[in-house]
Amino acid sequence: MFQTFESSSSPDQGPPRLAALRAAMAEAGVDGFIVPRADAFQGEYVAPCDERLSWLTGFTGSAGYAVVLADDAGVFVDGRYRVQVKAQVADVFTAVDWPETSLAEWIKEHASDGAKIAYDPWLHTPRQVAALTKGAPGVTFVASPNFVDAIWEDRPARPAGRAFAHPIELAGEASAEKRARLGADLAAAGEDAAILTLPDSICWLLNIRGSDIPRIPVVQATAILQSDGRVALFVDTGKVADLDIDADIHPPEAFLGAVAGLKGTVRLDPDTCPEAVRAAVTATVSEGADPCLLPKARKNAAELEGARAAHARDAVAMVEFLAWLDAEDPASLTEISAAETLEGFRRATNALQDISFETISGAGAHGAVVHYRVTEETNRPLKSGELYLVDSGGQYVDGTTDITRTVALGTPPEEARQAFTRVLQGMIAVSRVRFPKGVGGQHIDALARAPLWMAGQDYDHGTGHGVGSYLSVHEGPTRIARASSLPLEPGMILSNEPGYYREGAFGIRIENLIVVQEAAPVPGGDKARAMLDFETLTYVPIDRALIVPDMLSTGERDWLNAYHAQCAARVAGQLSDRAQGWITRATASI
Amino acid sequence: MFQTFESSSSPDQGPPRLAALRAAMAEAGVDGFIVPRADAFQGEYVAPCDERLSWLTGFTGSAGYAVVLADDAGVFVDGRYRVQVKAQVADVFTAVDWPETSLAEWIKEHASDGAKIAYDPWLHTPRQVAALTKGAPGVTFVASPNFVDAIWEDRPARPAGRAFAHPIELAGEASAEKRARLGADLAAAGEDAAILTLPDSICWLLNIRGSDIPRIPVVQATAILQSDGRVALFVDTGKVADLDIDADIHPPEAFLGAVAGLKGTVRLDPDTCPEAVRAAVTATVSEGADPCLLPKARKNAAELEGARAAHARDAVAMVEFLAWLDAEDPASLTEISAAETLEGFRRATNALQDISFETISGAGAHGAVVHYRVTEETNRPLKSGELYLVDSGGQYVDGTTDITRTVALGTPPEEARQAFTRVLQGMIAVSRVRFPKGVGGQHIDALARAPLWMAGQDYDHGTGHGVGSYLSVHEGPTRIARASSLPLEPGMILSNEPGYYREGAFGIRIENLIVVQEAAPVPGGDKARAMLDFETLTYVPIDRALIVPDMLSTGERDWLNAYHAQCAARVAGQLSDRAQGWITRATASI
Repeated sequence: MFQTFESSSSPDQGPPRLAALRAAMAEAGVDGFIVPRADAFQGEYVAPCDERLSWLTGFTGSAGYAVVLADDAGVFVDGRYRVQVKAQVADVFTAVDWPETSLAEWIKEHASDGAKIAYDPWLHTPRQVAALTKGAPGVTFVASPNFVDAIWEDRPARPAGRAFAHPIELAGEASAEKRARLGADLAAAGEDAAILTLPDSICWLLNIRGSDIPRIPVVQATAILQSDGRVALFVDTGKVADLDIDADIHPPEAFLGAVAGLKGTVRLDPDTCPEAVRAAVTATVSEGADPCLLPKARKNAAELEGARAAHARDAVAMVEFLAWLDAEDPASLTEISAAETLEGFRRATNALQDISFETISGAGAHGAVVHYRVTEETNRPLKSGELYLVDSGGQYVDGTTDITRTVALGTPPEEARQAFTRVLQGMIAVSRVRFPKGVGGQHIDALARAPLWMAGQDYDHGTGHGVGSYLSVHEGPTRIARASSLPLEPGMILSNEPGYYREGAFGIRIENLIVVQEAAPVPGGDKARAMLDFETLTYVPIDRALIVPDMLSTGERDWLNAYHAQCAARVAGQLSDRAQGWITRATASI
Repeated sequence: MFQTFESSSSPDQGPPRLAALRAAMAEAGVDGFIVPRADAFQGEYVAPCDERLSWLTGFTGSAGYAVVLADDAGVFVDGRYRVQVKAQVADVFTAVDWPETSLAEWIKEHASDGAKIAYDPWLHTPRQVAALTKGAPGVTFVASPNFVDAIWEDRPARPAGRAFAHPIELAGEASAEKRARLGADLAAAGEDAAILTLPDSICWLLNIRGSDIPRIPVVQATAILQSDGRVALFVDTGKVADLDIDADIHPPEAFLGAVAGLKGTVRLDPDTCPEAVRAAVTATVSEGADPCLLPKARKNAAELEGARAAHARDAVAMVEFLAWLDAEDPASLTEISAAETLEGFRRATNALQDISFETISGAGAHGAVVHYRVTEETNRPLKSGELYLVDSGGQYVDGTTDITRTVALGTPPEEARQAFTRVLQGMIAVSRVRFPKGVGGQHIDALARAPLWMAGQDYDHGTGHGVGSYLSVHEGPTRIARASSLPLEPGMILSNEPGYYREGAFGIRIENLIVVQEAAPVPGGDKARAMLDFETLTYVPIDRALIVPDMLSTGERDWLNAYHAQCAARVAGQLSDRAQGWITRATASI
């Protein structure tokens, strides 16, 4: 199995480690130290050696910070983790609602005037450092070696996973073409080179994948792309020894020197590049997005074909799982046994490379913990009369999947059915919408929420995130969220996952992946208006027991029935008898 | 009457004036000159002496630019004016779709490399100058005296309208309190003073109004607000001679010197301040929004009470007008006679100070010209079987109104009824929506468009603009539009005006004014989630003949019927017999 369920931390680790960190700070003469969840690659998953935040505090969420002062230690977590953090950190830490309270605001309030706050410049971007400096003008922020690393005695070694080729049939475009195209874009922008520090950008550009961290098949590496299309790759050479990569390969230690040696104008992404790298540049800096981000987000025909195949395969596993779940007595199952069984169905496809993130398997009140990760400590039986939420996905060589279904165990509470129906209405609204070119995820986010809003309800996370092609299941820069700022473009794969969470009671989320495409013209539509809409990738039934049919409009009902007919049609002939019987019932018209 | 209908320009003025301008450019040794519609105050209406763009080109729209080169002359107009510009400018000018094509892009393409393009620094903001400079790097932009003024022989004098007090009962907050409050905000931001160049900001701050330009009761003036609440006002002293204003009064010529003499840190709004003013500052510049903008947008209780009274009064005039229109033979009416009759009903309230903008009175295909302004030349009879669109408003001392109704004359075409119903669905969606605090107009704009989008249709203007309190009918910074960036806050008055336009055939727009308010809690809603919704200010019937009832959901139909019941109730006892009979029919349940 890929997923394990031991608790990776416990609150009582925190106090002695915090004390040791404070001693190291005092010795270095600084008044504070910032410990982010992020590593130097700014991704969602980090290697064990980079799990500094959970090592120090016990908090295992995928984003956050600790700010340690002599008398205060704040742990900054977003809306997904407000419940989880309380269970994971000792009371020497104070949970802070972030980003409602920024690091700078909290530091300004809790640090004395003139305080000297240290940070590791490899773990913070120039944008983050600027926000700190601007937000807490009475405080001095200083780059320093990492005090956590200094006190972490049994720290794991850096990962050295094998890299491998991502074949052209799946990538759809040769690396040489990508490099030439992006290099030409740099030249057109008057830039001589771009510094690349995101492993998934580099893997996309070079058509390689790797095994350095769990869940995301990337090689930890950095690179420099020249405007003539040449690439210098900085990577543990052992990882790529048996691989034919069209790039100059250098060891990681050579990276800062190469950066310092760049001439002319150099593109650098202030949102993702480490501050340590920015500080090393001697050439003229042109701040701009990593040039791979948008091209990588616009999936080509081969990548989309792969995504459809991966989703069709994954749907069989999900349907087998849901049919199994329906047949079992809930009391005989636990959150862990359910997650293990689901992973087993995915493995039975014989194509699963990894799960795409830790399965969220939450029964009853655990469903309200948005990014709940079940452990042996939190594990509980499923129970009739409750909801069960399962958010999971697979990494296949042809595509990355991500799906959430919420199912009723026995007879669900009426208020949960009503909330579920509102969540479904929002999910359908996004699935069905057509929109003109130029519209971004920030504009359609409200369509997913309006049915909840009208009932005084909402959810504290975005509606959708970008998804990679056998890369990160959370891939920027595209998303469906209020803070998004980019137009949606054909080929972008996004999740569509509104939810509703009643703390201590139940959680609801329905998630499909969708792709932006050119919309077919509508009779009577404006002739000159180019419009887009979404193709749905995920076809797995939505629990009819949780839907209040009278709340649906005719259009919503028609969409659901057509969707369910497709769910049954697409897996026909590939299911066990049990699953075939189940899907026939589960997709009956409403 | 306030409104006149003579054509204020004709295409044949353009060529000789363009030739004269080019001669002046050549004499000064520059390769181009930019002529914006804007004056130094960046408002929507300008004084006759500032109508440079229409004087030169014939184009009378409320926004746009001409860029004059030796061989090319582009007239940049937005989606509202694409049809209008073709009729107004001679073919020595080329209409350019703006902002799709920026000035800088066009200049880069049409001017030779190394060209020297002049602009009048009083008519451009620092942001605009920066965009030009950044967007056309091969071109040099130079501030210069205005070449149009130099060749405009019979140019009108600067306005010298009387200023008058806006009483505390209507303003709701004494000027001294506003000045102290805003001054304290400056001090908290570490700023010593703010430069104010927007007349409506200054009038709001000092609780005065004026008569310098049509439609907007402002005094053309500039000011400096100190962080201790003191104000220096730079204004033609004759305008304010008999007025008690708590400010140091100086003549306009003293402004640049006073700006140059400011010490410390000075707030300056790069989006509204003239570049000439920015260039005069010797102190440290803190770029930021005009500090009056948001406080002015958040109407207080007295202003909202005034808005409700002004809308109730205006509704009587609109209902009398619509009843009159319904009773007349369309063929006996023209766009002008209809607009004059409407103004007459508003004047009959005995409270009308001015109309709030030139009435848009468009029959048939003229309705598709989004900002159509009827003149003696374009005037045409109304005609049975067509739609008639009327967008109008009044300036009353207690509030500014703005309303659009589209009515069927005789039996409307079926495709117009369907489009009207979609527009209505969007208008209702915004009217009804609840949303959490933090949501901005950019997020709810799609709710107004989604019914059209689903039919492959859309409209090329924002959904809503802010509205002043006896000030500009188009008041920033709040709006409902994709490009908006600010959260909606209680007290903000906005228009809600989706539309649909079929060029050459018909135009549809339905517009109410609405106010953001704290939403009443909903049973079952999230306890801790503070939500907002809209109070509707405008209560005038929406033409039932244009609604396809079967397209409406139950919720939409309920909203419409309840709205119509309110329309009848609020004007009861104030109508003529004809109008009373009409409104009874017009508000019958659907």
